[in-house]
Amino acid sequence: MKYDVLIIGAGPAGYVAGIRAGQVGLKTAVIEKMYVGGMCMNWGCIPTKTLLESAKIFDKIKRSSEFGIDGIDIQKLSFNWGKVKSRSGSITKRLTDGVSYLLKKNGVELIIGTARLVSGNAVIINDKKIEATNIIIATGSKPIAMDKSIANAPVIEMEKLFSLEEIPDNIVVTGNHVPAIEMAQFFKLIGKKTTLVTNSNRFMLGFDDHLISFIMEKLQSEKIIVFLNAFAEKYENGELTIGGKKIKCDLLVNCNSRKATIPESEIPFELTEREFIKTSDDFETNLKGVYAIGDVSGKSFVAHVASAQGIHVINTIKGIKTNFNTRAYPVNMYTIPEIAQIGMTEQQIKEKGIDFKISEFPLSTNGKAMIEGNTEGFIRMLSDKKYGQVLGVQIVASNATDMIAEAGAFMEIDGTVYDVARTIHAHPTVSEIFMEAGFDVVDKAIYK
Amino acid sequence: MKYDVLIIGAGPAGYVAGIRAGQVGLKTAVIEKMYVGGMCMNWGCIPTKTLLESAKIFDKIKRSSEFGIDGIDIQKLSFNWGKVKSRSGSITKRLTDGVSYLLKKNGVELIIGTARLVSGNAVIINDKKIEATNIIIATGSKPIAMDKSIANAPVIEMEKLFSLEEIPDNIVVTGNHVPAIEMAQFFKLIGKKTTLVTNSNRFMLGFDDHLISFIMEKLQSEKIIVFLNAFAEKYENGELTIGGKKIKCDLLVNCNSRKATIPESEIPFELTEREFIKTSDDFETNLKGVYAIGDVSGKSFVAHVASAQGIHVINTIKGIKTNFNTRAYPVNMYTIPEIAQIGMTEQQIKEKGIDFKISEFPLSTNGKAMIEGNTEGFIRMLSDKKYGQVLGVQIVASNATDMIAEAGAFMEIDGTVYDVARTIHAHPTVSEIFMEAGFDVVDKAIYK
Repeated sequence: MKYDVLIIGAGPAGYVAGIRAGQVGLKTAVIEKMYVGGMCMNWGCIPTKTLLESAKIFDKIKRSSEFGIDGIDIQKLSFNWGKVKSRSGSITKRLTDGVSYLLKKNGVELIIGTARLVSGNAVIINDKKIEATNIIIATGSKPIAMDKSIANAPVIEMEKLFSLEEIPDNIVVTGNHVPAIEMAQFFKLIGKKTTLVTNSNRFMLGFDDHLISFIMEKLQSEKIIVFLNAFAEKYENGELTIGGKKIKCDLLVNCNSRKATIPESEIPFELTEREFIKTSDDFETNLKGVYAIGDVSGKSFVAHVASAQGIHVINTIKGIKTNFNTRAYPVNMYTIPEIAQIGMTEQQIKEKGIDFKISEFPLSTNGKAMIEGNTEGFIRMLSDKKYGQVLGVQIVASNATDMIAEAGAFMEIDGTVYDVARTIHAHPTVSEIFMEAGFDVVDKAIYK
Repeated sequence: MKYDVLIIGAGPAGYVAGIRAGQVGLKTAVIEKMYVGGMCMNWGCIPTKTLLESAKIFDKIKRSSEFGIDGIDIQKLSFNWGKVKSRSGSITKRLTDGVSYLLKKNGVELIIGTARLVSGNAVIINDKKIEATNIIIATGSKPIAMDKSIANAPVIEMEKLFSLEEIPDNIVVTGNHVPAIEMAQFFKLIGKKTTLVTNSNRFMLGFDDHLISFIMEKLQSEKIIVFLNAFAEKYENGELTIGGKKIKCDLLVNCNSRKATIPESEIPFELTEREFIKTSDDFETNLKGVYAIGDVSGKSFVAHVASAQGIHVINTIKGIKTNFNTRAYPVNMYTIPEIAQIGMTEQQIKEKGIDFKISEFPLSTNGKAMIEGNTEGFIRMLSDKKYGQVLGVQIVASNATDMIAEAGAFMEIDGTVYDVARTIHAHPTVSEIFMEAGFDVVDKAIYK
């Protein structure tokens, strides 16, 4: 029995590729060793946003008197970790059941087991050889392990967080990207003493410096203890030594940078410098007909790009040619306030020597933001000076992660700041700041 | 002393026109008889959304246990009308102060008084004649008064709502458009017995039938008593007779359809059939150099369109010609869930005989909507069958009023469903339903 497409890994790269392959009539199987939905649905995007949503509501309730709601004793409020976990689990179950259903509905076989490549056209799984014209590696990634010097510390990775019965009082989070910052803020919001450690000299590589400055100030104002250029050196008597300082630590959460989970293969994959599977612009590996998408290729670590890569590869296999490289995609952070970015950063634009304009508009004068009690934030639009093309957009706002979709629309169709300014935005909405940023660069903002 | 532009009315039509006129160097004055910011900032958009925001938080807090927040006794919760009013007042003050500041900053004079037109180039205000090359009428509208037969009823218009010390228990709201439905839901959310009456056979003229059906079901499920094709006939012993039935009524809120507030004028304005000031496509009245924008022209009753008309008229005066008529704009309703619409309805498309496709995608399978606990709703995208142009978008979602901005972006630049489908949307976000609706019409939705 030979498949048209064999996909290894049922995360947002693999399962979307699978559904798409089934839809376009390819004989397809998806191999998953453990959990359908991958990191994203089981421990990543979905569960962490569920935790954050509850923490945000917890925070909002503490502010409820400001909105005229009486009868809440803030001292009596508590965050019920058990309930939150179980809510998260039920959402995960609904979504992963949905994925299983969709695979089946589209005629895609789901095989549980661990695959080993024996050639560019065959894998061994559960001691059985399966052949396929195309193989797609979508095996994801895992965080880089903690240093052995702290092997005795109560380290946990996100995969295990949801098995904790309780969240202890003193938390240290390691990592330098979105998940680390999101988790640090989550623990802080539910009342834990929280420390955030990165071995890098800055957080959020790839984000605009302007956003990073905002986040650094935010972390400080929230009294999250931050260590840059540092790492956990030693664990002794419930204390972690970080950069020479001793910090109480009941739980050390590993949100470190990630490394590829490369499947066993008799023909070795060519790797990138950082040891991800190297691919062409169309995600083909050094083995003809073998593709790598999602985290394992190291090109992006966000679910929606993984899914888009999956669709792209299936299109490529079906002979539909498009250019993936030029596409802009949003990167979101679900903190309070939320942070979202799409397109080029100011630093990237400068490196390319493009003559550009920045137009920034604050939330503090936006009526709807006042109404929602969320005036912390701004929009920042970077555009080509000569033609007005929108090159990048950054948003800090309570709902930035959905608002960035409008920027995505303008960027996908090569919209200009003139288009942004001309688009009538509803009043009162937070999204009016888009139009204002547009006015600002084209001519003059009305509300500035 | 002669002005380039004299604007009568400082609502969202007039003050935006004023700021814009100042920005482009026109010698400008804005005449306001009472309150800078108009209906929108003082009793309409801003205050009502502030009320609704508090009511939404009140509602969310009642659901907080679902999100794992313990320690709230729902029986003890109460909605503090005094605090909510004062919060609304302070937001209004910030915004109206902002408008006064912006007018001043842009060199626009603000004159308090009531204007009377004596010619197409002059008005009398405070017994003084003022001349101007261009006059813009932006005097807004007021609700049609209640029938005299119920002159003894405790009728209130929105302008007076904020002077109430308390909200009584039995409320009747009259009207058939967005404000009536918003207010009815507001009163219901804060625990009042609420009745909604329209003299029309349907609510929300101009909205898609599909949305209206959704709303009718929603009102029913919330146990808001609804009367169609009816009116308040008699008021006796604290009871209002509506369509022959007696309904307890401590407060009758007039959110009726609106009629133009036409300024006194020695040269009469030509009026439309519904007695609004008749204008050309560029908002010029029968008097040369005299324009009418906002509610008074009867072309739209939403603030953002009024503002856009104001900018358009100033551009026209400055010799910048654009076509206003073809522009799509969103119409929002801030209920739970929110409802937003842009572009043509299904009924309008059918009337035009356009061959079209409908693609609908529910919130119930969207991960972020599950996370937020807001899975009630859908997106509906209507597109041209042959070319794929997006003709109209309807959204029902907790954050539909901001989400519709993305549809506005696609429509402003004549985007197609192919563009929508190709735009990478962040995961997990509610706005992914856009992409899914795009996939659905182009080919096949992934999550359907």
